[in-house]
Amino acid sequence: MKLTKEQQLDILDQQSQQNTTKRVTSPELEKVLYEALPVLDHGFIRVVDYMGDDSSIVQAARVSYGKGTKKVSTDAGLIKYLMRHRHSTPFEMCEIKYHVKLPIFIARQWIRHRTANVNEYSARYSILDKEFYLPEKEHLAAQSSTNRQGRGQVINGKQADDILKILKDDAQRNYENYEKLLNEKFDGSVIDEDKDGLARELARMNLTLNTYTQWYWKTDLLNLLNFLSLRADSHAQYEIRAYADIMLDTVKRWVPITYEAFMDYRVGGIELSAKSKQVIQKMIKGEKCKYEDSGLSKREWNELMSSFGFTENLQ
Amino acid sequence: MKLTKEQQLDILDQQSQQNTTKRVTSPELEKVLYEALPVLDHGFIRVVDYMGDDSSIVQAARVSYGKGTKKVSTDAGLIKYLMRHRHSTPFEMCEIKYHVKLPIFIARQWIRHRTANVNEYSARYSILDKEFYLPEKEHLAAQSSTNRQGRGQVINGKQADDILKILKDDAQRNYENYEKLLNEKFDGSVIDEDKDGLARELARMNLTLNTYTQWYWKTDLLNLLNFLSLRADSHAQYEIRAYADIMLDTVKRWVPITYEAFMDYRVGGIELSAKSKQVIQKMIKGEKCKYEDSGLSKREWNELMSSFGFTENLQ
Amino acid sequence: MKLTKEQQLDILDQQSQQNTTKRVTSPELEKVLYEALPVLDHGFIRVVDYMGDDSSIVQAARVSYGKGTKKVSTDAGLIKYLMRHRHSTPFEMCEIKYHVKLPIFIARQWIRHRTANVNEYSARYSILDKEFYLPEKEHLAAQSSTNRQGRGQVINGKQADDILKILKDDAQRNYENYEKLLNEKFDGSVIDEDKDGLARELARMNLTLNTYTQWYWKTDLLNLLNFLSLRADSHAQYEIRAYADIMLDTVKRWVPITYEAFMDYRVGGIELSAKSKQVIQKMIKGEKCKYEDSGLSKREWNELMSSFGFTENLQ
Amino acid sequence: MKLTKEQQLDILDQQSQQNTTKRVTSPELEKVLYEALPVLDHGFIRVVDYMGDDSSIVQAARVSYGKGTKKVSTDAGLIKYLMRHRHSTPFEMCEIKYHVKLPIFIARQWIRHRTANVNEYSARYSILDKEFYLPEKEHLAAQSSTNRQGRGQVINGKQADDILKILKDDAQRNYENYEKLLNEKFDGSVIDEDKDGLARELARMNLTLNTYTQWYWKTDLLNLLNFLSLRADSHAQYEIRAYADIMLDTVKRWVPITYEAFMDYRVGGIELSAKSKQVIQKMIKGEKCKYEDSGLSKREWNELMSSFGFTENLQ
Repeated sequence: MKLTKEQQLDILDQQSQQNTTKRVTSPELEKVLYEALPVLDHGFIRVVDYMGDDSSIVQAARVSYGKGTKKVSTDAGLIKYLMRHRHSTPFEMCEIKYHVKLPIFIARQWIRHRTANVNEYSARYSILDKEFYLPEKEHLAAQSSTNRQGRGQVINGKQADDILKILKDDAQRNYENYEKLLNEKFDGSVIDEDKDGLARELARMNLTLNTYTQWYWKTDLLNLLNFLSLRADSHAQYEIRAYADIMLDTVKRWVPITYEAFMDYRVGGIELSAKSKQVIQKMIKGEKCKYEDSGLSKREWNELMSSFGFTENLQ
Repeated sequence: MKLTKEQQLDILDQQSQQNTTKRVTSPELEKVLYEALPVLDHGFIRVVDYMGDDSSIVQAARVSYGKGTKKVSTDAGLIKYLMRHRHSTPFEMCEIKYHVKLPIFIARQWIRHRTANVNEYSARYSILDKEFYLPEKEHLAAQSSTNRQGRGQVINGKQADDILKILKDDAQRNYENYEKLLNEKFDGSVIDEDKDGLARELARMNLTLNTYTQWYWKTDLLNLLNFLSLRADSHAQYEIRAYADIMLDTVKRWVPITYEAFMDYRVGGIELSAKSKQVIQKMIKGEKCKYEDSGLSKREWNELMSSFGFTENLQ
Repeated sequence: MKLTKEQQLDILDQQSQQNTTKRVTSPELEKVLYEALPVLDHGFIRVVDYMGDDSSIVQAARVSYGKGTKKVSTDAGLIKYLMRHRHSTPFEMCEIKYHVKLPIFIARQWIRHRTANVNEYSARYSILDKEFYLPEKEHLAAQSSTNRQGRGQVINGKQADDILKILKDDAQRNYENYEKLLNEKFDGSVIDEDKDGLARELARMNLTLNTYTQWYWKTDLLNLLNFLSLRADSHAQYEIRAYADIMLDTVKRWVPITYEAFMDYRVGGIELSAKSKQVIQKMIKGEKCKYEDSGLSKREWNELMSSFGFTENLQ
Repeated sequence: MKLTKEQQLDILDQQSQQNTTKRVTSPELEKVLYEALPVLDHGFIRVVDYMGDDSSIVQAARVSYGKGTKKVSTDAGLIKYLMRHRHSTPFEMCEIKYHVKLPIFIARQWIRHRTANVNEYSARYSILDKEFYLPEKEHLAAQSSTNRQGRGQVINGKQADDILKILKDDAQRNYENYEKLLNEKFDGSVIDEDKDGLARELARMNLTLNTYTQWYWKTDLLNLLNFLSLRADSHAQYEIRAYADIMLDTVKRWVPITYEAFMDYRVGGIELSAKSKQVIQKMIKGEKCKYEDSGLSKREWNELMSSFGFTENLQ
């Protein structure tokens, strides 16, 4: 991540603000406000605004005239109760806004979460930065043989070098050809004064999907947690998980009580189907419990045993 | 609107907060933060939180690293441009939260705007306040004879008195019977110690639709403006317009540049159909323009002429 | 539920349609199409249109050129997999539309599900039917002493009679006064030719919350299942559950494979928090497991033990 | 657009369905159901399902027990009225589902319309087709000098040839390198049996933004019309307009009355701000009306004069 001098000054300027407000504030989140937290090789996450804190959830759940907080312990009890019983609307009462720089192929995954507000940098209007994502070697993995949408073992040695060379060369050449099409360099300088450049909305089609874009992304806490429960999960693609992990840290700073309930009930929790529950009931009672009688598919059975750590039962 | 001593203290407690923040603030809106602004006979609107200001719209439209503001005049130009061309997403980057007390039949209209977050006071869980809406005499109007969903002339004299008596007596008696069903008074005192009360979720069905309820309602600026353009409009029912007018004032305090653009392009503006545009074009050229040749229905023709003030052309 | 002669003919007219289509159809659902399935004392549910069937989910998940179906067993496997892993978007590819008649206090709960399309009968424009909900005696329950938003034991004898009398008398009188305010009977006859009626948008405020309203309600299968998992649940208020149960039957007719997966993974399933999972793991291993060491609140512990049927462990 | 033999058979199989239904049907839309309507060089639009027709809008607006239709002329009047007054909810009662093949950079614009259901072909799971968009020469335009997000004059001659060569070569080489990374050809054949392929979720990042993707996209009529009013507009990028134009044809087949109202009130209509309205009022009265006194910006003035065809007044 390279910020220009001007960008750094813009950020410092924001961070130096000292405004007075009657609104609730989140002191730990204020500490990192506006800061460009690095992700991947050229990306970042910046928290640029927020509304509410843990007490706002309590306040809305009670439709109260005052602050949400009675006692911290009471509030924590209520927040846990709401999380456990999926009483979701009070969590919508907190809002957060991020400025994110990310590769286009990740932006395409991200945007599938529809309940958010988005303003993306327009490549019809402006020229995209000359930055593209190249994975660290340790993240160059083969297609998984068991999971059709996952990664298997890491690729090493010459093959890894070859892969990185292809990715780098293609992205670079395509960007340079993008400049040629535009008849304009990324820094704004014109290449050939006697020529028109191709319209930006067309030239962009020559770029590769690892080119970085950026956007403002705003959502409420409930939908942020839904996003994180999917994207900070081990089944998510590593590159989006890298963003989700940083965002999870900002949630911890912002609404620490909610964060803890989320980790307990969502991230660390599991769902059992009716049939799986019967299997577990039998196991607790010490009854014999075999895959063949469970009514589960082999895949389900193995997922269930793995999630409880009974790997000796795998089929 | 009667606030209890405790409610007043809760509000004062919030208003006395003096927090420091790096976020942008809206000084004019801060002045009325948490205040219960009266609406109708027992209702109110309170702004309880907000995120962003005019500069946030500019900042998101530019996907900028710093504050939105370059110069106020440039920002105003951009906001007007966005409003005129319905580039709507930057207006979603501001968020506001209201605490509203309102009659149930108005709450039912209001909730039809789906893109908002809501926590309503639960009558399954709690007892509703003993307050119901009775219109001022000047708002007691007859059914309109021309508009099937509007009001006509004001009803006066004895008929008005009779109407108000019915509304008052029925609401009051039904509330008292609600208490009887609950076996509990609105102040929490039990009526008959030897009896169980009917479940709250059932007893509430005896209440009238002018009973007051309350909720926390949070939305972004774009959807708030959509709400206001429908509900602060002369075709809206008076009772919801009373709320919309107060909210319009809070918008003016919060985002004054956006407010001005909204008044010019939405509230004061009109839409012309293709056929209506042709009529106007002819009129400007001084050509004869008759209803019969316009291709408009009589209703459309009259709406068009009225909106331009050419009432001599009405059919 | 009383349908007028005209309404019955309208429904018969729709049911007699025999159109040819290249779209997929759901034969079992076609059998009850348009039929007014009774709910509560005067309500009903009518399926008035639908789009897609089980094969549409498979088709969209595969982004296929042809029908979804390869083999029923393969399709069922995929649908179960999608349900288990909360791959939710393919379930959005089916859509259904209901015509519902329901008491207003239930409509107010129902409308809180925002991701649906709604057209409600307008009481600004028309006069509401003279019908209000009165519970069966067996559903007259006291406020629960353990669950602040639930029902406890049934109320019997004279108290039950008194309750029903209040509900009936108040609803009836308020409706008759509504007619008086309107100066018009429910059948359209004018009461006093020399008077204007109060505007409908005002008169309606005199009605009680058990008055019936009706609406068209359209949603996709995913959001319908979310609705049903909350409203066909034992914690839901009986009166909305009565609707949800009928709708669940229509889902079974419409998309039988999805229905089965839904019953197994959602309705019959449970969620375990991280801490609860540890308790279960210990119990399976035969380790001593006491409430005091579990890290769960008493309420959580009891919910967990109850859900597995180990009531001897309740605290 | 090249469909494989198998895809063609799948489509024919769907088209040969002859199902009986009690639902309303749209005979003109049935005629093109499932057909791959070509767009751009390799894209297409297929209508794969729909729900409702013009009568469904009327039916929902009236919350009726029977079919919407009374008389076609009455229905048309109501639909026009609803469109004119932006009574939008009845238009949500019709639903349509498309299968679309489109270049990724257009998919990124399209997905910004959030109120739709989407299932996209997964490049984590499968290999993308070897197809990329190359513009027709007549659509190779220079960046506009007046509109920062539009196109200016067409680029001809050698420069056009050079542009197309770059676009073609880069897309082709990047696709071939994508195959190399995957160690697998687009037809599924393995390149080097001794090597693992890079995970699909990573390899895809090497593709260019003009590579074709495909998705199922389902939305209601209201949101479809909103999409079309933005994307079938002359300010939209040509490549998305090409899709919108074909979709507009399907709307005409599906709901002809709504289509006509849409063309009159939305597509052919304009919005006037309060200030612009005053200008027009003066012009009709024959009063002198100069830009300097209008209160409009030069840009607004020119937009206004252009939209009425008074180009002699341009500043």
